[in-house]
Amino acid sequence: MAGDERPIGMFDSGVGGLTVAREVMRNIPNERIVYFGDTARVPYGGKSKETILRYSRQIVHFLRTQNVKAIVVACNTASAFALEEIRRELDIPIIGVVKPGARVACLTTKNNRIGVIGTRGTIASGLYTEFIREIRPAAQVIGKACPLFVPLVEEGMLKDPVTVEMAERYLKELKEQEIDTLILGCTHYPLLRSVIGQIMGEKVTLVNPAYETALGLKELLEREGLMNVRGLEEGVSHRFFVSDAAENFREIANHMLPMDISGACRINIEEY
Amino acid sequence: MAGDERPIGMFDSGVGGLTVAREVMRNIPNERIVYFGDTARVPYGGKSKETILRYSRQIVHFLRTQNVKAIVVACNTASAFALEEIRRELDIPIIGVVKPGARVACLTTKNNRIGVIGTRGTIASGLYTEFIREIRPAAQVIGKACPLFVPLVEEGMLKDPVTVEMAERYLKELKEQEIDTLILGCTHYPLLRSVIGQIMGEKVTLVNPAYETALGLKELLEREGLMNVRGLEEGVSHRFFVSDAAENFREIANHMLPMDISGACRINIEEY
Repeated sequence: MAGDERPIGMFDSGVGGLTVAREVMRNIPNERIVYFGDTARVPYGGKSKETILRYSRQIVHFLRTQNVKAIVVACNTASAFALEEIRRELDIPIIGVVKPGARVACLTTKNNRIGVIGTRGTIASGLYTEFIREIRPAAQVIGKACPLFVPLVEEGMLKDPVTVEMAERYLKELKEQEIDTLILGCTHYPLLRSVIGQIMGEKVTLVNPAYETALGLKELLEREGLMNVRGLEEGVSHRFFVSDAAENFREIANHMLPMDISGACRINIEEY
Repeated sequence: MAGDERPIGMFDSGVGGLTVAREVMRNIPNERIVYFGDTARVPYGGKSKETILRYSRQIVHFLRTQNVKAIVVACNTASAFALEEIRRELDIPIIGVVKPGARVACLTTKNNRIGVIGTRGTIASGLYTEFIREIRPAAQVIGKACPLFVPLVEEGMLKDPVTVEMAERYLKELKEQEIDTLILGCTHYPLLRSVIGQIMGEKVTLVNPAYETALGLKELLEREGLMNVRGLEEGVSHRFFVSDAAENFREIANHMLPMDISGACRINIEEY
């Protein structure tokens, strides 16, 4: 039996979700990915639930045209604002990055004090807190929005003194609250892992939802009998679509992914 | 004769263009403004010409439904990428912020060394350089993209040490090049005027295209016989439309404008 050879659909507001794509490629190498980055409307972090839901619906509509067997919402803001409603409208499985990250944080903490950093939208949604409390009702969750982290990452200032200064400000309260587990609740943030780790110190475990999402996807595919047992055929490769500036995307993707991509295709997402 | 009582249409990627609206209200108080801020797709600065042109066309189409007599592109990126093409498609006058800023810089400089700061899109377009050279062929134009200024302004970090540090880095080269005139080529930047002025020193004149655009609009309306001679009637006021998060917009607008606005109306710009 060859299993299900249809691809996995995945989307993010831009390049951040490639950290999730990378983990899927490493952990479920048999699966083909169709990735969409909404580079014409990036960032999602400060925008309203209504707008993020409309954008997510358009993207899911587009991904369905690519005959995907499951969808990964590789964006924390869209996972927080749109996932539950879209799940009700879909007949294929869909998973986001919030629940897998929350689950692992609950398994990791020893003192029941969990920090979450993310965009304004993700933190204001309170969704990490909600999921964590469901699994571990005794946990205290301290959320902190870090709105400058995305532009700093997109400027490539990964270890810059300005980034360190902003990280010290954003993380000060979380340190004072003596958390022992910190969820990197935005797909850009794993790229700041070394700065964040240095400030938080060795006693705080950093949780990367990208990795946990890849494992969650694997479980889901197995459970639903959707794994591609045969593996990728020669010449069959992942595909990348964006809503703007395909060439920029390709360059960044080639830095972030374990292999070079041949290109990204620009589409007009507003038509979906 | 009452002149032409139809409103002026004005648009920007978000709140930045309110610096232009403010100057129009101060300098042509008889005119009513219909303002559109594209808060669902903000920022424009790093996006492609093709995308900015598509967005601008949709917005112009919306503004036409409001029976405007002229359009002000209150956004440097859209002025650089979309103004000339849209002008060819329109039967009402349209002006942007680039040309008025360039003209005043040419009248101001004594040593023919003019600096321009803006988003990546504005600087990469080379449009300020082109306009300046047309008027003053001997001028040397030194452009510098300052991509973190918009997020720093939107975080309200107008005089923060981090903003000062970034400004020092961005402006270092312009200081070394001994410019005597600096165009604030992004509508957010006048809010950083005091930091930028302190770093550049007294010998450098800062040009604010928002103010020059208001004067340019006044001349245009007079020349075309479009002035509202009678003035605003009691109860007639400016109107504000956005593509996302109307309440946030209202709060920021009330800080930036000389009067409080009663509200902004959210529309789905993708339908235009």
